[in-house]
Amino acid sequence: MSGDVKSHAGGEVLVRGWLHKKRLLGGLNFIVIRDRGGLVQVVLQDEAEIAKLHGLHVGTVMSAQGQAVAEERAPGGAEIHQPKITVEVPVTDEPPIEIDKPLSHKSENLDTLFDNRVIGLRNLREQAIFKIQAEVEESIRRFLKENNFVQFNSPKLLPGSTEGGAEVFKLDYFGKEATLAQSAQFYKQILVGVYERVFEINPTYRAEPSATTRHMSEFITIDMEMGFITFTELLDLLSNLINSVVNEVWQNCESELKLWDAKKPVLAGSFPALTMSEIHKKYSEATGEDTTKELDLIPKEERWICEYAAKEHGSEAVFVTDWPKADAKFYHKLKDDNPEIAERCDLLFRGIEIVTGSMREHRYDKLVAQLKEKTGASPDDPGFKYFLQAFRYGMPPHGGFGMGLERLTEKIIGLANVKEATLFPRDINRLSP
Amino acid sequence: MSGDVKSHAGGEVLVRGWLHKKRLLGGLNFIVIRDRGGLVQVVLQDEAEIAKLHGLHVGTVMSAQGQAVAEERAPGGAEIHQPKITVEVPVTDEPPIEIDKPLSHKSENLDTLFDNRVIGLRNLREQAIFKIQAEVEESIRRFLKENNFVQFNSPKLLPGSTEGGAEVFKLDYFGKEATLAQSAQFYKQILVGVYERVFEINPTYRAEPSATTRHMSEFITIDMEMGFITFTELLDLLSNLINSVVNEVWQNCESELKLWDAKKPVLAGSFPALTMSEIHKKYSEATGEDTTKELDLIPKEERWICEYAAKEHGSEAVFVTDWPKADAKFYHKLKDDNPEIAERCDLLFRGIEIVTGSMREHRYDKLVAQLKEKTGASPDDPGFKYFLQAFRYGMPPHGGFGMGLERLTEKIIGLANVKEATLFPRDINRLSP
Repeated sequence: MSGDVKSHAGGEVLVRGWLHKKRLLGGLNFIVIRDRGGLVQVVLQDEAEIAKLHGLHVGTVMSAQGQAVAEERAPGGAEIHQPKITVEVPVTDEPPIEIDKPLSHKSENLDTLFDNRVIGLRNLREQAIFKIQAEVEESIRRFLKENNFVQFNSPKLLPGSTEGGAEVFKLDYFGKEATLAQSAQFYKQILVGVYERVFEINPTYRAEPSATTRHMSEFITIDMEMGFITFTELLDLLSNLINSVVNEVWQNCESELKLWDAKKPVLAGSFPALTMSEIHKKYSEATGEDTTKELDLIPKEERWICEYAAKEHGSEAVFVTDWPKADAKFYHKLKDDNPEIAERCDLLFRGIEIVTGSMREHRYDKLVAQLKEKTGASPDDPGFKYFLQAFRYGMPPHGGFGMGLERLTEKIIGLANVKEATLFPRDINRLSP
Repeated sequence: MSGDVKSHAGGEVLVRGWLHKKRLLGGLNFIVIRDRGGLVQVVLQDEAEIAKLHGLHVGTVMSAQGQAVAEERAPGGAEIHQPKITVEVPVTDEPPIEIDKPLSHKSENLDTLFDNRVIGLRNLREQAIFKIQAEVEESIRRFLKENNFVQFNSPKLLPGSTEGGAEVFKLDYFGKEATLAQSAQFYKQILVGVYERVFEINPTYRAEPSATTRHMSEFITIDMEMGFITFTELLDLLSNLINSVVNEVWQNCESELKLWDAKKPVLAGSFPALTMSEIHKKYSEATGEDTTKELDLIPKEERWICEYAAKEHGSEAVFVTDWPKADAKFYHKLKDDNPEIAERCDLLFRGIEIVTGSMREHRYDKLVAQLKEKTGASPDDPGFKYFLQAFRYGMPPHGGFGMGLERLTEKIIGLANVKEATLFPRDINRLSP
């Protein structure tokens, strides 16, 4: 691999990969080869070898066999000299996008970025995003496994919409109507009755009708649920998880983070938790804009409270607790001492919500009553009856959360749009590549 | 946890979980509590404590606090004596399915099994299947990561059907037609151009029009692809992967495998590889049934060749190579020395195909020609144009495979139907729970 050339300095090496850069203008002639180990510079002098690359473009699949020479200034700290070049797959067209210079991520250039994604990903800076994302996912798996969570896969083809709302994709399922899962909510709760602690990392679908910097129609959710816990324990677990992910990513992805000048988030061991009404009050006082009648946080408030928490609590992540019942889902648990407030806990990180979590109502009768009140649905409705069965036959106090993998990656790196942290994003305007 | 009671023998313990079994008939009164650690037996003598469980059924959420007493014959090797019982969530209805005795997996009882899945999974024997499956998935991730594969997530919402065939789900995507991915084929190949070695473990959708023991409309595929390899190296990687998975599962899931009397597969280090025509010939000679005109193996042949390989080669896994061009996909690589034969390699394991793999045609012009010949599609077709772009700008020799997680789990355990190894199976007749 290109990254190993330095350790062979003084000996002969063969590197096989893609032509990544070509400077054959006379004087100093060199090319750069890319392989999965990174980049290596190859210095050419022999006219016959130079001629082999005549008319060929970046992307050409090739190998270079020659002397490994230590060279501080070269990528990877070494070069290949006096190479014998072998062209395996010639590329005769110029690629549609730059792969050796940083690609623009300005919002007005994102369509160009995504239209050319297939080739643009060959750019090392783009590659880095998804290596970081793979490590984010892996570190989440490790943490949850160490905490005795069992991984599961639940179906995404469902008999009806269970989360409510219009944002559901419908399809013909052998003559019946099916919907695509908007979350793994019911399955993860059902499985608390089986394994107590469970998680799933899988696609989620929302027919989001507007193009925004934070929404997509398909994304990966980390869904997690645990039984026999309290609200405080749920918050602690999430604080520990995010701290663990950030530490492991900064430990294992140093070079990738550097390509984006990513700043390691400042995080409290236990994230500060503020109630919705506290935030409305603080924001209204600070800005003069009255949000105390809002059911949710407005986007400006999300950004503001993150800055506030960073300054006042030394944490770029902050919990929002105590959500109004009017904005609750039927499965949310209301506070025993104040049924107007749901035990919900969203996590804001660097200005946006990356996690939504809550304690769940685990008592069958109460859950059925909340279902009827909130949705008007019957407990026999095919979208709900199996979910309710778990409760009829005994469910413990439990809670959990759903976290967007792409949003978390976006904010860890410091990107501005969730689609930048998605290999092949999907929204109302985009279904390809 | 229940599994820790033994190590506290002589001391006081508190176990919190579900009532799993109740024998309060006078004489020896005991109950069994289930938690995520397993089962623990609780011996009751005090009438007041016994009375607390009067009329309550399996599933009741409760705790028992009492003396931990070593007891060889009890599950986990210990019991709780003189308990104080606390009922947290009473269950007053009898569960619809047995959770303390093995559930029937006979084909005529599978509908009962799946209709009652939500509660039936609380049965330890059913739980074991999905703990094994989680370990299968985890061991695959470990192996691929150790071999420098980068994990990715590709979209399942596609602009059109890319694999051909009628078995595709269609949906309305903001007024346009979208399809659900039948495989990650194109994306994994595209990403070979980026990371060389990639894998994805995600859902796959097939509108399979018949109910069989081996097909579902939604399942999890392990999709893997690697660049700069030969056909032999691809076979070796797969042999090593399956050997690694089997060893790790047998190391980490001993008690779960025991519940199913699972026999560890006998596997060669490098699986034997037989060509399609060799298999037809051997089968026809052995059985008198002529299959030499078939393009594929018939199911009886799949079972026969697995038995043959076990007997003659000491391996319950066997590769089928050299598939006829007529049955090839347009992206399959045809043999350089015989273009009537595709470099495809399916893996049969214990009687069924669990993996389909091949080398891919990596030369742009040839790939376009094969696309036109096989599908009649234009290279500008939105379903193909981005895929082809990767090749236009340089792709190395590469190959890969797709493996069904549920089929692999099924065969490792020794089940008879892929749905038994699926938490909530989906087929033409079933869309819930």
